[in-house]
Amino acid sequence: MSLENKIKTVIRDVQDFPKQGIVFKDITPILKDPSLCKEIIHAFEDQILQLKPDAIMAIESRGFLFGMMMALHFNIPFIPVRKKGKLPYKTISYSYHLEYGSATVEIHEDAIAKGSKVLIHDDLLATGGTAIAAAELVKMQEGEVAGFSFVVALDFLNGANRLKKYSNNIFSLVHY
Amino acid sequence: MSLENKIKTVIRDVQDFPKQGIVFKDITPILKDPSLCKEIIHAFEDQILQLKPDAIMAIESRGFLFGMMMALHFNIPFIPVRKKGKLPYKTISYSYHLEYGSATVEIHEDAIAKGSKVLIHDDLLATGGTAIAAAELVKMQEGEVAGFSFVVALDFLNGANRLKKYSNNIFSLVHY
Repeated sequence: MSLENKIKTVIRDVQDFPKQGIVFKDITPILKDPSLCKEIIHAFEDQILQLKPDAIMAIESRGFLFGMMMALHFNIPFIPVRKKGKLPYKTISYSYHLEYGSATVEIHEDAIAKGSKVLIHDDLLATGGTAIAAAELVKMQEGEVAGFSFVVALDFLNGANRLKKYSNNIFSLVHY
Repeated sequence: MSLENKIKTVIRDVQDFPKQGIVFKDITPILKDPSLCKEIIHAFEDQILQLKPDAIMAIESRGFLFGMMMALHFNIPFIPVRKKGKLPYKTISYSYHLEYGSATVEIHEDAIAKGSKVLIHDDLLATGGTAIAAAELVKMQEGEVAGFSFVVALDFLNGANRLKKYSNNIFSLVHY
């Protein structure tokens, strides 16, 4: 079975979460299967190796799970993107609209070295609002977006099209 | 230099976060140093190996960073503990008071197999409120608390004393 099909077998559809009419793709059952998690990380590594990123930026909090593994594998810094008010030191922030409302995300103002190539990771790509906010934070610190990686992409929401402005390197292991 | 001193050199004190009078131990500079992250994970592994846990439970969201690495190293399931309303499937929850207010945390109702030994991980041990809530969730699902691991323990807040009710295996790499 392909990795995509293995992951699809494990992902759980939850009806009406976080609101009526949404079918949520629940990735938590993946976390119960360490062998599958390792396959996922290796698949990301194969895709990302060519991009030679200087840092992995991941979005709170499910993005932390695989993002941290990738950073350590490539022996490069990990940059946490968090919701407003969560990071203790001086931050830069970006506000945006997303599928279920609006949000502000932040990074520490010393998180990205000028000119560094940053790979942006999250568990799921929907409309792309959060990933775009992360990309804007990279640009605000004069970094370069090396690409994007997701476990799951909801292709019917066209998020990837919106990300192309920042990088054409958009990897997802599973597509719906 | 000992690992504890290496980590202390990197941790950043942030004054008056999240409120006036608190000196917050900011671990994010650790994440910029992949070699130090690997040393931290190896130190955890050495301590936890003897406990033979069946699963690693980690607390959103900084606990996810090292907790996921530990789960994959031991080839065992990872159980995310999240704030109320974040997990999409059916949950069990536990409410508690903590240093800066009150909170409710949740796990999915199928997260823990009955009788399994669960290691609870978070980045920082303060008064122990969140770790106790995690331990109560383990007990609600008829699991066993194998122990607790933290990067940092604020010993002057006596959190470890409160955790002894659940397990005497309480590991922290750095003490203040």
